[in-house]
Amino acid sequence: MYFHCHCEGLASFVAECLVAVGASRAEASEVSDVLVAADLKGISSHGVARLFRYVEGIETGAIAANAETVVVQESAATAVLDAQNGLGQPASIRAMRLAMNKASCVGAGVVAVRNSNHFGIAGYYASLAVDRGMVGIAMTNASPQVCATFGAEPVFGTNPVAVGVPGVGGDDFLLDMATSVVPRGKLERMALSGETIPEGWAIDPAGSMATEHAALIAGLKNRDGYAILPLGGAGERFGGHKGFGLGLGVDLLCGPLAGAAWGRHVYGPEGARLGHLFVAIDTAAFGDPETIRAQVASLIGETRGTRRVHGASRIYTAGEKERAHERESRQNGIRLQNKIAQSLRSLAGRLGVPFPTTMRGECRDLP
Amino acid sequence: MYFHCHCEGLASFVAECLVAVGASRAEASEVSDVLVAADLKGISSHGVARLFRYVEGIETGAIAANAETVVVQESAATAVLDAQNGLGQPASIRAMRLAMNKASCVGAGVVAVRNSNHFGIAGYYASLAVDRGMVGIAMTNASPQVCATFGAEPVFGTNPVAVGVPGVGGDDFLLDMATSVVPRGKLERMALSGETIPEGWAIDPAGSMATEHAALIAGLKNRDGYAILPLGGAGERFGGHKGFGLGLGVDLLCGPLAGAAWGRHVYGPEGARLGHLFVAIDTAAFGDPETIRAQVASLIGETRGTRRVHGASRIYTAGEKERAHERESRQNGIRLQNKIAQSLRSLAGRLGVPFPTTMRGECRDLP
Repeated sequence: MYFHCHCEGLASFVAECLVAVGASRAEASEVSDVLVAADLKGISSHGVARLFRYVEGIETGAIAANAETVVVQESAATAVLDAQNGLGQPASIRAMRLAMNKASCVGAGVVAVRNSNHFGIAGYYASLAVDRGMVGIAMTNASPQVCATFGAEPVFGTNPVAVGVPGVGGDDFLLDMATSVVPRGKLERMALSGETIPEGWAIDPAGSMATEHAALIAGLKNRDGYAILPLGGAGERFGGHKGFGLGLGVDLLCGPLAGAAWGRHVYGPEGARLGHLFVAIDTAAFGDPETIRAQVASLIGETRGTRRVHGASRIYTAGEKERAHERESRQNGIRLQNKIAQSLRSLAGRLGVPFPTTMRGECRDLP
Repeated sequence: MYFHCHCEGLASFVAECLVAVGASRAEASEVSDVLVAADLKGISSHGVARLFRYVEGIETGAIAANAETVVVQESAATAVLDAQNGLGQPASIRAMRLAMNKASCVGAGVVAVRNSNHFGIAGYYASLAVDRGMVGIAMTNASPQVCATFGAEPVFGTNPVAVGVPGVGGDDFLLDMATSVVPRGKLERMALSGETIPEGWAIDPAGSMATEHAALIAGLKNRDGYAILPLGGAGERFGGHKGFGLGLGVDLLCGPLAGAAWGRHVYGPEGARLGHLFVAIDTAAFGDPETIRAQVASLIGETRGTRRVHGASRIYTAGEKERAHERESRQNGIRLQNKIAQSLRSLAGRLGVPFPTTMRGECRDLP
């Protein structure tokens, strides 16, 4: 059972819930835009399903509503922002916009955010740059769930990186990947649907492969030694040390460099204290932007056009599947898992916010 | 059989060979420094074994000796250099220095190089930034040898990325990785030593796993459909689409953005036309550099200190093994495979350059 919902209706609902617990209308709208963008792309683990944690975070005081993001330090091409424990999205949107403004002036901008919270999908921020015709890079550290190569307990987060490069006619390159072999969200989705977790994704506290999802999800949540493996898997044979290096690299830039918490101290006793890093590069500083776009389109096109392995129907480049999903969602509505939709309905009741079913007649239960 | 050689003697020899075929003393010295740095770190595939190709390249006119690297475009935080088909190392050293100077002035610098040749190890350039207390990132595209996810022929190169972050007392983070599951050099080393290539590293023109190294090395060289898999391996189950995305991302930044060749056109009829990208970030623009170094050291230290899987003696962070190898090599000499040493001896004879055995008495044949 799924629940279909028009994206504007859903976005307003999410924003109203945040306003109901004390967020400003401006920040609620930004958070809602980032969450709904994830659902539109089919990345439901980072979509409106996250609203519960944000609402709870504000209600318990773990996240500060209406926090003012302040500039701690700034130079022509760089800045450090302090999110003051506010919602991650407004601080991150501001950071990427600042990076883009710097890129417009001096060719490139690098902006770090410290003392922040969950920012949603990294790809949202890379897309902001792409929408302005720039190269955009966004990364964040995250709660510790990934082990080192040959390690048997979590040492840092799934530490995602997004890279966006503008192409032609909206056919952009948009990579948005956890540096672990799988994102946590995928494990949660598989747990919900009862699928078996393959060997090579995660380990139990003894360092053996963890394939039983209930134990794994609980073990990750309770931080009792279960860990997701880095991209490349266990050991070094298939490049696990590379995924480990990428994840640690992201943590070094988002933690120590940004002045945020890092490694096992993210989401510690003092709060999330997450760090993010945003980079914008103006293509006009490197050549004629239209020529660069055309070359990007050619490289993407030739890549898709290479010979395929037997049985493969086509080759997708990064961002393509999500774009197709978004087109479909905008036309037919966002498909929420019924369990999520029911929880949202309960939340609506508790907060006294009208539930999307009443909005624009676009929401419907489907078998 | 190995041949041990003192690094200064080897470096002078390499430089003399390049001067003998027409390189300026300055560029010869830079190339030699980058090649010997790779041997010192134990990355022999990118060490002096590459000299033959450089010498041959200059002799055939494929690489221009004494090319002047020119600035094509420049802004406060960015620049584009044209290597004018010269040796990759001098252009790349100049590019990273320019990026660092920009970072000193405006906090960050992003410098691209077009129309270049093989630049050696990416980590060398990231290290230049680290040695100046900065974060350094270096990447390059390369000859097409890696397939797309679900692709059955090479579409771009092993496209390496290096990331360096300064730590305390030389204990820096230095990731230097091909975005493919293995670098080409590792396959060549295994071919030399006769080891079996594991399933999951490379495919034959039919898209099946290639495990026979003679056919694979020849197939990659002759560009007849053999391909190395992206980091994460075949398909999407273990994140192969992430390695594919990283490799394509590097190609987009080093090819279309830098104005260089890309994808299957690198090392095409018009020459290598490689592109590189260098980023330097001044840690002083993000906080107190000593505090940042101390936090880097703590994160690295805690990572190494996590519980290990059964049988693992320790956890290494990126750059650590290479640093240990370099200490050993500086003390006991660089260990060259006898086959390489013999080829160098022949080259010395042909070019009329004294061979290292005569230098400082530091070179010796060992059983």
